[in-house]
Amino acid sequence: MGAAHLLDYLAALRYGRLNGVARPRVASARAAVVTVDADCGTAQLAFDHALGDLVERARASGVAVLAMYNSFSAGELGHYASRVADKGLIALACANSPALMAVYGARVAITGTNPLSCALPHPSGPRMFDQATSAAAWVTVRDAAMRGETIPDGWALDADGNPTSDARAALSGALLPFGGVKGANIALVVEMLAAVAGGSFSQDAAPFDSGTRSPRLGLFVTAIDPTAFDTSYAQRAEDHLSRLASEHDADFGRRKTPITEVEIPDDVYRALTTP
Amino acid sequence: MGAAHLLDYLAALRYGRLNGVARPRVASARAAVVTVDADCGTAQLAFDHALGDLVERARASGVAVLAMYNSFSAGELGHYASRVADKGLIALACANSPALMAVYGARVAITGTNPLSCALPHPSGPRMFDQATSAAAWVTVRDAAMRGETIPDGWALDADGNPTSDARAALSGALLPFGGVKGANIALVVEMLAAVAGGSFSQDAAPFDSGTRSPRLGLFVTAIDPTAFDTSYAQRAEDHLSRLASEHDADFGRRKTPITEVEIPDDVYRALTTP
Repeated sequence: MGAAHLLDYLAALRYGRLNGVARPRVASARAAVVTVDADCGTAQLAFDHALGDLVERARASGVAVLAMYNSFSAGELGHYASRVADKGLIALACANSPALMAVYGARVAITGTNPLSCALPHPSGPRMFDQATSAAAWVTVRDAAMRGETIPDGWALDADGNPTSDARAALSGALLPFGGVKGANIALVVEMLAAVAGGSFSQDAAPFDSGTRSPRLGLFVTAIDPTAFDTSYAQRAEDHLSRLASEHDADFGRRKTPITEVEIPDDVYRALTTP
Repeated sequence: MGAAHLLDYLAALRYGRLNGVARPRVASARAAVVTVDADCGTAQLAFDHALGDLVERARASGVAVLAMYNSFSAGELGHYASRVADKGLIALACANSPALMAVYGARVAITGTNPLSCALPHPSGPRMFDQATSAAAWVTVRDAAMRGETIPDGWALDADGNPTSDARAALSGALLPFGGVKGANIALVVEMLAAVAGGSFSQDAAPFDSGTRSPRLGLFVTAIDPTAFDTSYAQRAEDHLSRLASEHDADFGRRKTPITEVEIPDDVYRALTTP
């Protein structure tokens, strides 16, 4: 879920904006569609309930979509894409978040940081990227604010809608998209897809870090079975990625060493482990 | 097809890298998949042969994919997305091109300008964007070179792999992605999807503006039926886009006035209209 968000999840459970006893409900109105109501719980739990169905339908139909609604923030989006790619399917995942980003010249946040992830199946494990459509992740700006550091131009607006390099001012203002209007377009598509099954639009989503209401967000995962298009694709794709890496040192979705340890402050550790 | 490419198409027909008498072949290996061999003709012709099948399958299954191979350059990608959205379906389209762009620090072009388009159905006509994953379109750089103008930093490398603001030097070098590594990631996903049914990878594609060989490119179009997820989605989406426009002057996929006239030089007009 992104270790940086651990405390957010714990606080959300305490204050009720995250349902710790959620019972996700999975449904399907068409052969290549799975919808899942996360019951205001974690997206990870709801995804676990629906993944098998998504994979089966993608293999049967060639492509299938899982659309979630009523979930807490999706957290690390690459988790979902990688789980699908582990099954030999190409995965595209996107999710929206409470409004944190100004786009198209708006002076306040009107959409989320709306991440996008893609994972390709690969013999050595999925080749995956996972990126916010904001120039910088919200937690990066929050960390800079806590350390009293400045942030680069182009990352954020202040509360008055003016560009700022003050991380604290950015937290009460709005983030900006990566890549200008092209990034903004992608952020909006992510939102329109993430909301397709009934998830909140970002402007309507309750915050994930305060209050008692669930953000009721959406998640949209497309699973594509390459063997439905060309049985030689897996080998062609593997060869192409190898060529890019060996001839140009260009590594798409470089496989990271799995993280097996996370450092957390002593007091947090005690609070988590004391019954 | 993008009027800027008119002469490219005519020259391609003359020199045989575009098949003017192509017979596209449509096939389907699974319920939600349509593949189409463009027979080295235009992508537009092959798409016309497969669109009805794509729409029918998307409605039946909730989502469907059209994957094309062996086509000439896709041209204006928004054409395909808009045609799908005209049928009430959400459309995502992407295509690769011959290698014109350096990504991940490579010093030469290793992928195409790989455009991405999305179109949402809307009562006033599809709301659509269509954008290259390069910082600037190749024709924009070519036009600047013809006018002897410079180009902004961050658009291109020269033939030695160094950043350049000389448009002519850029034409023998490589374009750069929009949004740095995030844009590069999107360009690579576009390529890996566009090639799924057997289209050339960009590095292997013959050029569209010289030689006698077809570039044999790919096109990948996903069609999503929102009614398979939530029957109220169309109204929710329309209301949300209206709110963004009225409250924040933020117009996603602004509907452009259709172009009904194109200016072309007299000698070209004579060449086109003289039997």
